[in-house]
Amino acid sequence: MNVALIGQGFMGRAHSNAYHQVSRFFDIEDRPRLKLLCGRNREALRAMAARWDWEEISTDWRDAVSRRDIDAVDIAVPNSLHAPIAIAAAEAGKIVLCEKPMATSLVEARRMAEAARGVLTMVWFNYRRVPAIALAKRMIAEGRLGRIFHYRAAYLQQWGNDPTRKSGWKLDPAIAGSGATGDLLSHVVDTALALNGPIARVSALQTTFEPGRKVDDAVAAIAEFENGSTGTLEATRYATGALNRNRFEIHGSLGMLAFDLEDMNRLEFHDAALPAAEQGTRSILVTSPSHPYGANFWKPGHIVGYEHTFIAALADFLAALGSGAPFHPNFDDGLAVQDVLDAVERSAATRAWTLPSAYRAANQA
Amino acid sequence: MNVALIGQGFMGRAHSNAYHQVSRFFDIEDRPRLKLLCGRNREALRAMAARWDWEEISTDWRDAVSRRDIDAVDIAVPNSLHAPIAIAAAEAGKIVLCEKPMATSLVEARRMAEAARGVLTMVWFNYRRVPAIALAKRMIAEGRLGRIFHYRAAYLQQWGNDPTRKSGWKLDPAIAGSGATGDLLSHVVDTALALNGPIARVSALQTTFEPGRKVDDAVAAIAEFENGSTGTLEATRYATGALNRNRFEIHGSLGMLAFDLEDMNRLEFHDAALPAAEQGTRSILVTSPSHPYGANFWKPGHIVGYEHTFIAALADFLAALGSGAPFHPNFDDGLAVQDVLDAVERSAATRAWTLPSAYRAANQA
Amino acid sequence: MNVALIGQGFMGRAHSNAYHQVSRFFDIEDRPRLKLLCGRNREALRAMAARWDWEEISTDWRDAVSRRDIDAVDIAVPNSLHAPIAIAAAEAGKIVLCEKPMATSLVEARRMAEAARGVLTMVWFNYRRVPAIALAKRMIAEGRLGRIFHYRAAYLQQWGNDPTRKSGWKLDPAIAGSGATGDLLSHVVDTALALNGPIARVSALQTTFEPGRKVDDAVAAIAEFENGSTGTLEATRYATGALNRNRFEIHGSLGMLAFDLEDMNRLEFHDAALPAAEQGTRSILVTSPSHPYGANFWKPGHIVGYEHTFIAALADFLAALGSGAPFHPNFDDGLAVQDVLDAVERSAATRAWTLPSAYRAANQA
Amino acid sequence: MNVALIGQGFMGRAHSNAYHQVSRFFDIEDRPRLKLLCGRNREALRAMAARWDWEEISTDWRDAVSRRDIDAVDIAVPNSLHAPIAIAAAEAGKIVLCEKPMATSLVEARRMAEAARGVLTMVWFNYRRVPAIALAKRMIAEGRLGRIFHYRAAYLQQWGNDPTRKSGWKLDPAIAGSGATGDLLSHVVDTALALNGPIARVSALQTTFEPGRKVDDAVAAIAEFENGSTGTLEATRYATGALNRNRFEIHGSLGMLAFDLEDMNRLEFHDAALPAAEQGTRSILVTSPSHPYGANFWKPGHIVGYEHTFIAALADFLAALGSGAPFHPNFDDGLAVQDVLDAVERSAATRAWTLPSAYRAANQA
Repeated sequence: MNVALIGQGFMGRAHSNAYHQVSRFFDIEDRPRLKLLCGRNREALRAMAARWDWEEISTDWRDAVSRRDIDAVDIAVPNSLHAPIAIAAAEAGKIVLCEKPMATSLVEARRMAEAARGVLTMVWFNYRRVPAIALAKRMIAEGRLGRIFHYRAAYLQQWGNDPTRKSGWKLDPAIAGSGATGDLLSHVVDTALALNGPIARVSALQTTFEPGRKVDDAVAAIAEFENGSTGTLEATRYATGALNRNRFEIHGSLGMLAFDLEDMNRLEFHDAALPAAEQGTRSILVTSPSHPYGANFWKPGHIVGYEHTFIAALADFLAALGSGAPFHPNFDDGLAVQDVLDAVERSAATRAWTLPSAYRAANQA
Repeated sequence: MNVALIGQGFMGRAHSNAYHQVSRFFDIEDRPRLKLLCGRNREALRAMAARWDWEEISTDWRDAVSRRDIDAVDIAVPNSLHAPIAIAAAEAGKIVLCEKPMATSLVEARRMAEAARGVLTMVWFNYRRVPAIALAKRMIAEGRLGRIFHYRAAYLQQWGNDPTRKSGWKLDPAIAGSGATGDLLSHVVDTALALNGPIARVSALQTTFEPGRKVDDAVAAIAEFENGSTGTLEATRYATGALNRNRFEIHGSLGMLAFDLEDMNRLEFHDAALPAAEQGTRSILVTSPSHPYGANFWKPGHIVGYEHTFIAALADFLAALGSGAPFHPNFDDGLAVQDVLDAVERSAATRAWTLPSAYRAANQA
Repeated sequence: MNVALIGQGFMGRAHSNAYHQVSRFFDIEDRPRLKLLCGRNREALRAMAARWDWEEISTDWRDAVSRRDIDAVDIAVPNSLHAPIAIAAAEAGKIVLCEKPMATSLVEARRMAEAARGVLTMVWFNYRRVPAIALAKRMIAEGRLGRIFHYRAAYLQQWGNDPTRKSGWKLDPAIAGSGATGDLLSHVVDTALALNGPIARVSALQTTFEPGRKVDDAVAAIAEFENGSTGTLEATRYATGALNRNRFEIHGSLGMLAFDLEDMNRLEFHDAALPAAEQGTRSILVTSPSHPYGANFWKPGHIVGYEHTFIAALADFLAALGSGAPFHPNFDDGLAVQDVLDAVERSAATRAWTLPSAYRAANQA
Repeated sequence: MNVALIGQGFMGRAHSNAYHQVSRFFDIEDRPRLKLLCGRNREALRAMAARWDWEEISTDWRDAVSRRDIDAVDIAVPNSLHAPIAIAAAEAGKIVLCEKPMATSLVEARRMAEAARGVLTMVWFNYRRVPAIALAKRMIAEGRLGRIFHYRAAYLQQWGNDPTRKSGWKLDPAIAGSGATGDLLSHVVDTALALNGPIARVSALQTTFEPGRKVDDAVAAIAEFENGSTGTLEATRYATGALNRNRFEIHGSLGMLAFDLEDMNRLEFHDAALPAAEQGTRSILVTSPSHPYGANFWKPGHIVGYEHTFIAALADFLAALGSGAPFHPNFDDGLAVQDVLDAVERSAATRAWTLPSAYRAANQA
């Protein structure tokens, strides 16, 4: 697989690392080849290509789409470019990998998903591959929580209030689409959908604390899930003291699970089936061979970090590519997230309970 | 102060303990005298009076109101009896102390507050006197958090799903008024009002998981506060693994505070004014002489428990009584809580953003 | 039981509280009667008697021993007075309760134990009645840990370095006997003996950081237990940041238990018999009816504090008194602790591995 | 720098990863070249070379020493081979990097250090480069702890009792030299020396729980440091529930620091200089640009893992190589660790307090 990566920022670095590292930790038949790196700043591009061993560079992303020796186009640029690049790449028959949030609007996301119907796709919701989150998913699938009552999630960061970070594309609505909603709540929603199924309706509140800022600094929603559970979904860039606290807790009839990305090697589990006198919340250090990806990385108790979520996501994607098995999250999954984000934004704008369009459609049919 | 206590259950026990213990830990000029214990079950009443040293018993609460030697009537009975007893006691000129929630409805609470205008009152929102919460209040008042952005609180219990506890007055709407909302969210709202000021509007969701049950098992709300901060307020009896997790976290421009009743001797504090390399969330063991009530109980590191919140509340009430200073939470504070609960219930019923009536009135005036 | 309490300090307050509270939380047939309070400072004594409802006072402890209407003598004075009072009380046929450490030397402790052979005794090693420690003892007895490998305990306080606390009887060797060893390590050793059985030999180090101070500020020992496990036993008044961190962790073939007095309502448990993927250390909130004393105090999740350890200890003592069952820790248990402390001190003085005398005797016989 | 790596196991993998990754995260002028991989099993060697991009393989480690195109020899084989390879490599003028423990005995370590006097060396005590430990070292150097009173460290693992792991070179004294002492306590001692300075004397206990096993399963020591502080140093493979808990806590006159490798992105800090009411232990998430290596890896709150300690160690070594600055830990540092381990073993064998030889020599001079 010859890869063209478009993007020379933080995410470009995380993806580059994944392309190199995936074959160290996973059995990959054909290693991805780091063929072409695209970006706008030629000088920085050169330095990045040198550091991360990209074979060639281009300042025009269209090269990634038009070159016949490129198999996969990986999009790690600001949000508003996701749709044009992804659609062009898909129409050129490329495998398409795209950073989150998939798009700046539901309309864009729909166009992307439609354009990509015939190609293999992936949205980089990398946190699904946090070993502890993958374990949570497995335990829920095994019925360890029983019937779910509550899903409570919040993604907390603090930099929105940092006086040294008052500009940048993430604060520009034309490029980012939204603020905390697209940037952070997208992760919250993707994980929620993966662990707890479709969201039926939301009532949401978006807030901007910084005068003059055009994107939301914080968002909070109450939600009903299709499975009858209720939840709160939050994201904010104004949570002083929180660096990257993407956390959730899930209460079911048989137990509880909780997670915090700042302690990402741990999963908290309460097993309500144990004898009363021995019940308590247990901290599982998710680093053992019996855990997802535990056999791939280091030894029990030897923890992994942020970058490993990209490596594991890529490994699963490559495995799906090889076996023909479906991969998630793909563009349809990304669209489902965008649909909920859209409902959140409409709810906040109208101050009314709002149904995601897919849910409305399904229940009207 | 001659006290008549009405109620022979769990709360009656907690109050009885407070009347005895308050003079051990605080300098009380006139010790409260445990004069009369009222309840319906004479045999149990006798046993309780013997154990807790109440001088007399009566199976008719009206005795508490009519006897001239009673100075204070303390109401620790199921919710629907709060209003009739409190109104009768207030009209008889008694000091009135009342368990939370103050009433089963806003109408009742208003009548109680009006009837009690001329007497001294207290609502037993005992958690305001958790030393860590009192410290939080002091730190916020001192400006340690700066401008508040977020107030996030949840009161989590699990017994709603316990098959051995399918009945009882707390599940009877005629007696309890509501479920998790009155029982647990009332505490959440009282603390929120005390720490973060008036709540301007809410959008809420009430849920009943148990078929046939007539009260809410869980409630969740998003909220806007008058000070511009936003929040989530939740309460549930279906949080498997949580015994009594009444917790909050507050993010401000200068710091963060967090609390969990299951670890009630601790307050978490993040000070954003420290050098970047040394910032982190700090666990303050709130047991030192420099802390609220720290000089009253034991020594630093020698923790206190649930009952001490009642003792400290009573001590403050008696001190206010002696000095003529205002005491909070009084019936007006209890009414303010009930007003927010009413807005929560109306919001849940109408699926619309709802303003507490006091807030609406104030902003229309 | 008519009680005479000797001591008007912090421990006197804790004991007074226990005498009042024991009958509130436990079914006590004959309530202890707070008959006589002895101490040296008449004015303070009067105030304390008034606050804690002692019927009479005396400035001569001999009154407690000589009065025929006194059944039990409770000793809560500085250490060097334990032996003379306890011996006199025992010889007068009184029930004797004594604060820890039992004595200032092994010789004294032996004399006390011998004098008290015919009477009922108790040493106030109150931490045995922390519900979490009682649960630990029960779980070990049930075999939940299997064969024990390691016992690691430390009692950490920080006040030794406090410039405002440079004097006081605890720093006077003539009164205290020793510093951290008698004051803190005594608790560590008592709990160790209760949970893990006899200590076979120790190598210890005592340290005094403050120039001119005559008692040890810190003590550390490595130890072999009779059951083949090894351990470290530590105590210090120089652990900056620690207020009252009396903690232990125990590793066995089937699991692990850990405890910290600053979070005394919790017991940490690792169950190695669970499936590998679900193993983790679990935090048990020891407040449920299935837990020791859980049915006596409040409800699940409603925590107890420092004073409840005295109440529970007294309740158990009174129950033993009533039933004629043996009670622990009695003076023989206190002597066993003193024997280990003596070995620690001899080891530190001689820089040699040292056997407690009882252990040496038993193994020579 | 052309590297020859000797070793095809777990550590070989960790080193291989570091050689690739160092130039991704650090500015490295001349990237290390993965020239030659040596090991005994040709087939596995081939697979490993393919996976980790080693240019050539050899089944004879002497090739690494004799080939003129090799600049650096990296030793990641079982302990008993460290000395012969390191000495041969040093005598051939190679840069020598060696896994820990440096040797199986003090005699070997001395010979290695002497042989390597003229070449650049490194011992892979990688944990010195845990960002949190590097921060601890910086804070201690800055005087944030004041005078040190206590250094308490333990390295806890559980696999010694795993019935599926009853053999392997780590349990063979001829190859490993010792058990928990060399394997785990070596890390404890290296960190102790780095953070708290020379160890003056120890009293130690080594234990073997498994019948017939020839190496120690656990070791515990009390220690005096040259700076007047005292400590406990422990390591065990029988700590059920602990996967890789390499932890320490350090108490000084101005504060406390604590660390646990299972939560390696965090450093606990108690600042005793803060106002009393706000003191508490603070959890610093060591991932920010103001922290060691924080600017090299990802963003604040995006944690790193086990492998990054090797990457950072290598980066520092390469930087020292480039600048000519001294690097630590080098073979002299490894020797100092071995000297303490030797004292521990002698103390355990003789049951006597024992001085490390260097300390004895220095204090006799």
